[in-house]
Amino acid sequence: MSKGASISGFPEWLPSERVVEQRVIDTLRRVFELNGFIGIETRAVEQGASLLKKGETSKEIYLLSRLQEVGHESDTPIEDRLGLHFDLTVPLSRYVVEHSGSLAFPFKRWQIQKVWRGERPQEGRFREFVQADIDVVGNGDLPAHYEVELPLVMVSALEELRAFGLPKATVHANNRKLSEGFYRGLGLSDIEGVLREIDKLDKVGADEVVRLLIESCGANESQARACLELAQLTADNGAELGKRFDMLCGSCGIGHDNDAYALAREGLDTLAMIVDEAAKIRPGSVIADLKIARGLDYYTGSVYETFLEDADSLGSICSGGRYDNLAAQGSKRYPGVGLSIGLSRLVSYMLHTAGAHASRVSPAAVLVAVWNEGDRAQSNAIANVLRTRGIAADVAPKAVKLGRQIRYADRLGIPYVWFPAQAARNDAGTAAEGDESEEETGGDEVRDIVSGQQLPADPKSWEPDTVYARQTVSLKA
Amino acid sequence: MSKGASISGFPEWLPSERVVEQRVIDTLRRVFELNGFIGIETRAVEQGASLLKKGETSKEIYLLSRLQEVGHESDTPIEDRLGLHFDLTVPLSRYVVEHSGSLAFPFKRWQIQKVWRGERPQEGRFREFVQADIDVVGNGDLPAHYEVELPLVMVSALEELRAFGLPKATVHANNRKLSEGFYRGLGLSDIEGVLREIDKLDKVGADEVVRLLIESCGANESQARACLELAQLTADNGAELGKRFDMLCGSCGIGHDNDAYALAREGLDTLAMIVDEAAKIRPGSVIADLKIARGLDYYTGSVYETFLEDADSLGSICSGGRYDNLAAQGSKRYPGVGLSIGLSRLVSYMLHTAGAHASRVSPAAVLVAVWNEGDRAQSNAIANVLRTRGIAADVAPKAVKLGRQIRYADRLGIPYVWFPAQAARNDAGTAAEGDESEEETGGDEVRDIVSGQQLPADPKSWEPDTVYARQTVSLKA
Repeated sequence: MSKGASISGFPEWLPSERVVEQRVIDTLRRVFELNGFIGIETRAVEQGASLLKKGETSKEIYLLSRLQEVGHESDTPIEDRLGLHFDLTVPLSRYVVEHSGSLAFPFKRWQIQKVWRGERPQEGRFREFVQADIDVVGNGDLPAHYEVELPLVMVSALEELRAFGLPKATVHANNRKLSEGFYRGLGLSDIEGVLREIDKLDKVGADEVVRLLIESCGANESQARACLELAQLTADNGAELGKRFDMLCGSCGIGHDNDAYALAREGLDTLAMIVDEAAKIRPGSVIADLKIARGLDYYTGSVYETFLEDADSLGSICSGGRYDNLAAQGSKRYPGVGLSIGLSRLVSYMLHTAGAHASRVSPAAVLVAVWNEGDRAQSNAIANVLRTRGIAADVAPKAVKLGRQIRYADRLGIPYVWFPAQAARNDAGTAAEGDESEEETGGDEVRDIVSGQQLPADPKSWEPDTVYARQTVSLKA
Repeated sequence: MSKGASISGFPEWLPSERVVEQRVIDTLRRVFELNGFIGIETRAVEQGASLLKKGETSKEIYLLSRLQEVGHESDTPIEDRLGLHFDLTVPLSRYVVEHSGSLAFPFKRWQIQKVWRGERPQEGRFREFVQADIDVVGNGDLPAHYEVELPLVMVSALEELRAFGLPKATVHANNRKLSEGFYRGLGLSDIEGVLREIDKLDKVGADEVVRLLIESCGANESQARACLELAQLTADNGAELGKRFDMLCGSCGIGHDNDAYALAREGLDTLAMIVDEAAKIRPGSVIADLKIARGLDYYTGSVYETFLEDADSLGSICSGGRYDNLAAQGSKRYPGVGLSIGLSRLVSYMLHTAGAHASRVSPAAVLVAVWNEGDRAQSNAIANVLRTRGIAADVAPKAVKLGRQIRYADRLGIPYVWFPAQAARNDAGTAAEGDESEEETGGDEVRDIVSGQQLPADPKSWEPDTVYARQTVSLKA
C-alpha cells in the first residue's frame, strides 16, 4: 500500500500490489463459480432506512448528499437519504426481496465488491475495503446441509490462496440454538446479553467476562462459570462434542427432558454434522468452538469465524452464519446462510507479511523494440501478431538507444525484448509492411533479458517460456 | 435491468444480465492487457477540492458525511469533504502525482470501476455506472504516437464486443490545435466559447449555432459560417483532410504564413497521422470529423468521440483526448491521452436492443441429483471430482422427485443432470465413499436435459460438450 495515501482508511494499491489483489479476486471467483454460485453486483447505495436496520455496524454509515443539497442535508430524514452499503448482506436481502420473482431458489450467489464504513479514522482500520461473500438464500425454507457446505466452499477457496502466502485457515463453528438452549437451561434469560459478553472473551479474559455476566446479565457466580465452561468447549468431531456437552449439562444440572435442552440439542446436532461432514472432505478444516458468538444479532443457527495459523492478530478473516429472519416480505421469509471474507486485510497480509509479489508489473510478456520512429509501424505489426495469438505485447515508447528500451522492459518486469528484423532499418516503407517482408529482410530476434539468451523468432509461431507466459504471483524466497 | 429497481438512476442487473456485463468487462480487460496496459483500482472517494477542479461534471458530485456528522455537515468546507469520483480521470491524475516515484513512465493503465454522478434523477440517466478507461501518462513529455494507438486499442476492444450485439463503432477524431489555429486565423479569440457552441451542433442545428457564435462569441456572420464549415469537414485520409482544410483556409483568407495557421497545421498533421495509421491497421475505424469539440476544457490536442452504426440515440459511447495539463506537481507535468467507455449504457443496449443473453444463469454445467438425503455425500463427492477437473457443478438442493430436480436445473439453464449410481441408493455408507465403489454399484449416468440423451459417465473422465462447457453470451436469433 502506498505510504503516502492521503486519505486515512482508504487503501490503494500500487500496480504490482494490485496484481496480487486481482489474482486473489480471480481465484475466489473461480472457486465460487466451480461450486455453482451465481455472481451478482448490487448498487453501492441503499436507503438509509435499510442501512439503519441492522445491528451495530449501522453506526458507521456514510450518507450521500448532492452538491446542490449542501447546507440543506437536514431537510431530509436519514431514513430517506442514500448511504453507501457497509456490507454485502443488507444489499443481498434487499435484492432477493426486490427480484424474488426472477430468481430460482435456493439462490446461491457470490459477490465481491467494495464496502464502506464511516468509522473514526483509526490505525489499521479500513473505511473502504473489498468483501467477498457467498450466501445461499431459500424461499420459505433452507435445508441445513448448506450450513455444512458453505464453510467448506470457503475453506477450499482459502486453500487456493495459500499459494499467495495465506496461512492454513480453520473455520470455528458454533450454533446459536446450542448456546441459547444451554443458557436457558441454566435459568438465564438475557440471551443476547450473555452472547455479547462471551464475545469479549478473547479481548478481556475469563475473569472479566464472569464479572460482566454477573453485573450485566443477571447471572450468579456458578451460572457465569458454566457459561464460561461452555465457551471453552471445543471438539473436532461430533461424538466428542456430544459427549462433552452432555457432561457439562450433567455437571450444571441441566436435564435432558426440558425444552431448553431440546433447543440446545437441535443446535448441537447441526454443529456435529458440520464438523463430521467437513472432516470427511477436509480433515481439520472445521472445528466446533463454542465461544464463537458473533456480534451481530441476526444469526439464528450456525455461526462461523475463521482464523489463520500463526496470524492471531488478524482476528477472524471470514465470518458468517445462518440467518432465518434477515429478509422477509409480508408473510414470506427468505432464510439464508453465508460467509464473508474481508479481502483487503487478507491482501495486505499477503503483501506485507507473507511477501506475495507479482512476477511483473506489466501484463506484457514481450516489449517490441523500435529502431527508429519511422519503423514504429513495423514494431506495431509484430506486437499485433503476438496479441492475436494471445501473447500480451507492448511496444517501446520511444526509438531511443537500445539500452534504454531494455531498461524500460526491465522496470516493468517484461521478460522478453523483441528486435524487429534489422535489414528493414534503412527502409521504413518496407518495414511498415511488417512480417510479410521478413524473408527478404532477415529474421526477427527475441532476447530473454534475464538470461541474456537471444534467438531468431517469428511472431506467427514463437512461444514464450511457460514460466514467463503470464503474470504470476509467488512468495519471496 | 429490474423494472422494480427502487432508486432511480442506480441500475442493477438480474443474474442473467450480470453474466453479460461480466463478460463485457472480462473481454475489455483481456484486450487492454494484451496491449500491455496495467490494471489499477483507485479508491472511490477523492477530496472535494480535487473533484471541484474539473470543468462541468463537477456540478454532479456526491459528497459523503459520516452518520455522526449529520446536521453539522456545513462545518466542513466542501473542499475538505470527501466525495465520490465522477470519472476515472481525476483519480488517475491524483494517483500518478501521488505515486510517481513508484511508476514506470509512460504509464499505461486500464481501469474499470463504478463512478457516481449526483444528477437530478432523469429518464435514462444513470447516477451510478461503470466506466472502462485506458490512458497513457508521460512524465514531462508524451510521444504523439499514443494519440494514434489508444483509439485503435479501443476500436479493437469494441470490435470484440460485436459478438455481444454491439454495432460497428467508428471513432471520430479532431484536434484542439487545429480548431484553435483556425478560429484565431479567422480573428476570433474566445476559443473555448466557440468550441462550446460548436459542441451543440447536433443538438440545436447549424442556424442556431451561427446565431450563438454571433451572440456569445463576438463572431460576425462570415466568421460564424466559416466555423460551421470547419465543423462540417470530415475525411477518412490525411491527404484529403489536408486538401480540404487548405481550401477552406483559402476561402476564408487564412494565409499559411502566420502563427495561427502553424498551430492549426500542427494539429492537422497529428490528426492526419491518426487517420492514416488507423486505416492501415483497421480501415474505416477512425475518421477525421472536425465538429468533435468535447465539452471538457482540459483537452489540449486530439479529441475523440465514438459512434455506433444505427445507434445515434446513444450518442458518443467512448470519448477522450489528449490533455497536457491535467496532472502537475510543482514544475513537473504529466501529459496524457486516454479514452473512456460508458459501459453501463453499452450493456443496457446489448441487453435490451441487441438481445444479448447468457446461455445459462448458473455457471454450473452439471447438476448432480440426490436420490435421498442419506446419499447427499455421494453426490457431493461426484461434484467435487468434477470441480477438481475444472467442471463447474452444483448439487440438487433437496432429494425431492427427480422431475423437480431436473426442473431446478432447467430454471438455472444447467444443461446436464448427473445421476449417481443407483445401487448405492440403499447404502448411504458406501455411497459416501463415492466413486471408489462405483464398479460394485454400477455406473453413474448423465443426461443432457435439452436432447434427453442419457449416457453412462465417470466423473473422473467425463467431458461436457464444448458448447455446454461454459456459460456463454450470444444474440437472440
